[in-house]
Amino acid sequence: MDNYHKALTEHLREAVEKSEPKQLYDPIKYVLSIGGKRIRPALTLMVCDFFGSDFKKAIPAALAVELFHNFSLIHDDIMDEAPLRRGKKTVHEKWDLNTAILSGDAMLILAYRYFEQYDPETFRELAVLFSETALQVCEGQQLDIDFETLEKVEIDEYLKMIEQKTAVLVGAAMKMGAIVANGTEADKEIMYEFGKNLGIAFQLQDDYLDVFGNPETFGKQVGGDIISNKKTFLYLMALEKGTTSEAQELAHLFSIDPADPSDKISTVREIFIASKAAESSKVEIEKYSNKAYSLLDSINIPEDNKKLLRQFGEKLMERNV
Amino acid sequence: MDNYHKALTEHLREAVEKSEPKQLYDPIKYVLSIGGKRIRPALTLMVCDFFGSDFKKAIPAALAVELFHNFSLIHDDIMDEAPLRRGKKTVHEKWDLNTAILSGDAMLILAYRYFEQYDPETFRELAVLFSETALQVCEGQQLDIDFETLEKVEIDEYLKMIEQKTAVLVGAAMKMGAIVANGTEADKEIMYEFGKNLGIAFQLQDDYLDVFGNPETFGKQVGGDIISNKKTFLYLMALEKGTTSEAQELAHLFSIDPADPSDKISTVREIFIASKAAESSKVEIEKYSNKAYSLLDSINIPEDNKKLLRQFGEKLMERNV
Repeated sequence: MDNYHKALTEHLREAVEKSEPKQLYDPIKYVLSIGGKRIRPALTLMVCDFFGSDFKKAIPAALAVELFHNFSLIHDDIMDEAPLRRGKKTVHEKWDLNTAILSGDAMLILAYRYFEQYDPETFRELAVLFSETALQVCEGQQLDIDFETLEKVEIDEYLKMIEQKTAVLVGAAMKMGAIVANGTEADKEIMYEFGKNLGIAFQLQDDYLDVFGNPETFGKQVGGDIISNKKTFLYLMALEKGTTSEAQELAHLFSIDPADPSDKISTVREIFIASKAAESSKVEIEKYSNKAYSLLDSINIPEDNKKLLRQFGEKLMERNV
Repeated sequence: MDNYHKALTEHLREAVEKSEPKQLYDPIKYVLSIGGKRIRPALTLMVCDFFGSDFKKAIPAALAVELFHNFSLIHDDIMDEAPLRRGKKTVHEKWDLNTAILSGDAMLILAYRYFEQYDPETFRELAVLFSETALQVCEGQQLDIDFETLEKVEIDEYLKMIEQKTAVLVGAAMKMGAIVANGTEADKEIMYEFGKNLGIAFQLQDDYLDVFGNPETFGKQVGGDIISNKKTFLYLMALEKGTTSEAQELAHLFSIDPADPSDKISTVREIFIASKAAESSKVEIEKYSNKAYSLLDSINIPEDNKKLLRQFGEKLMERNV
C-alpha cells in the first residue's frame, strides 16, 4: 500500500490546479491537505494493480473517489455542525457556511472532471458508476438524518443506511480499479460486492469499537456514539434482543444528556453485553467479512493477488478491542 | 417555442423517478414544479431543431441543464438567505438548511445522469462541457459574493462575473443542442458564443430594468438592487464616469439602508442618468447583442433558422423600460 499512498500524496498535492477565486479553491486545497487515511483511492489503485495493469493508470479515478469523499465530508460536517475534522477546523468553521457549501459543490464537479482523462467508453462507465454511487451516498446521508428523529428504526433499515452512506463508495472505488484495468463484467461486479461487504463490516466494527474500543488506539473518543444518543447497530440490537427492562433503561439513557457521561457510558456498555447485542454485532461483522472473502473464490486474478486482497481485508478488520 | 415548452413541462413532471427518501426527493420535485421560464432548456431544444435534428433527441440534455440551473438556485438561495423564489418559499425556508444542501447535491448528480442516455462519444462531450460550465458558475457565484465586501470592483471584473455566473450556462445550453444534432466543431462553438454574448446582454439588461424597468411588466421589485446596495454595472459605471460629487453621493447612498428607500432610489436613478451610466449600459447591451447576432453570419444552418435565432435574441432583449 505504501506505493499507492506515495503516488496519491504526490498527485493530491497538485490535484486542483486552479487557485482563483481563492475563497473557492483555498478550502478545497485545505481539506485535501489535512490528511485522512486515503483508504478508498488506495483501493482503486490496488485493484487496478491486482488486475495486472499499471496502477498509475487508475490515478485519475482514485483522485475522483477521494475528491468525492472529501466533498461529502465538507457538506456532512455542516449538517452535523461538526467543529473539527481530522483534528483541524472544518471548512464552515474556518471560513463560513456559504464557503463550505460552494467549495463542496465545486469539489463534486472537480471529481467528475478526473474521468475526462479516460477514453469515451471508460469515461462513460466510470461516470455512470460514480453518479449512481454518489446518489446512494446522498440517500444514505438522508436516511441517517431521518433516523435521528424516528421513534423506531429496523435493523434492516440501519444496515441499508450504512450500506448507502459508507459501503457503496468502497465497492465503487474497488470496481473503478477493475474498470480501468479492463476486467471482465463478472470480475468488476465481484470487486464491487467485495468492497461493499467489507465496507459494511468495517462500519459495523467502527460502531462496535466506538463502544468497546481501546481509547489509546481507536483514534476517536470512545463512547462518542453513546454520548450523542446515536442509534447504532448495537443500540437497535439491544432494544430488539434485550429484556423489557433492559430496553426501557436503554431508551431512557438515550433520552438524556448528563454533564458527566461516564456512568451512562458504562451502564449502556453493560446492557450491550447483557442483551447479547455486542455478541450479535461481532457475528454480523464476521458474516459480512466472510461474505466478502468468499466472493474471491470465483474471481479471475492470480491466486497470490486473491490472498493479498483477503489479507488487506483482514488487516482492515484487525483493529481490535 | 411552445412545442419545446410543452415537451419540457411533460418531461420535467417525471424527470425524477425516485421518491424515497422523501426528505431528499420531495424538495427536488417541489423546485421543479414551481415553474420558472425554462429558457435555458428550451434553447437546447431549439438549437437541436435548427440544426436539423429531431428536438426530442435533445430532451435529456435540456433536462440536465434545467436540473443544474435549479440546483444552483437552491444553493444560491441559502447563500443569499432568500425567503422566496418564484413567489414560493425557498427550499431552506420550506424545509431546512440541511435539506436544501443535500437535495441540491442530489440534484447536481441527477443532472449528470441525464447524459447517460447518449452514446459514449456524445455522453463524454456533453459531460465535459457541463462540468466546465458548472465549475465556471461556481466561480461566478464566488466572485459575486467576493464583490459584496470589496471596496473597489473593476467593470471588467463585473463583466467576467456575470459571464461566469449567468452567461456561460446559456452558451452551454445552446451548444448542447448543437452537440446532440451532430453539428460541426465550428458551428457548436458559434452557438456557444452566441448564447454567451446574448446571456451577458440579457444580464446587463436585467440590471438596467431593475432600476429603470416598468414595475408592471418587470416581474421583480424595481429598485431591488439599489435597496440591497448591489454593485451592478450601472453603479460601477456611475462611479467611474460620474463627477467626484456624484461618485461620493452614490457611495454614501450605497452605504445606508433607509427604512423608506423611495428617496434613495430616485436619487440613485438621477445619478445613473446624469453620470451617463444609464446610457453606457444601453450601449454595452447593444454591443453584446450585436456581437451575438454577427456570429450568425458564419454558421452553417438554413438562412430561415438564422433569422429565427436572431428574432429569438431580439425578443429576449425586447423587454423595455
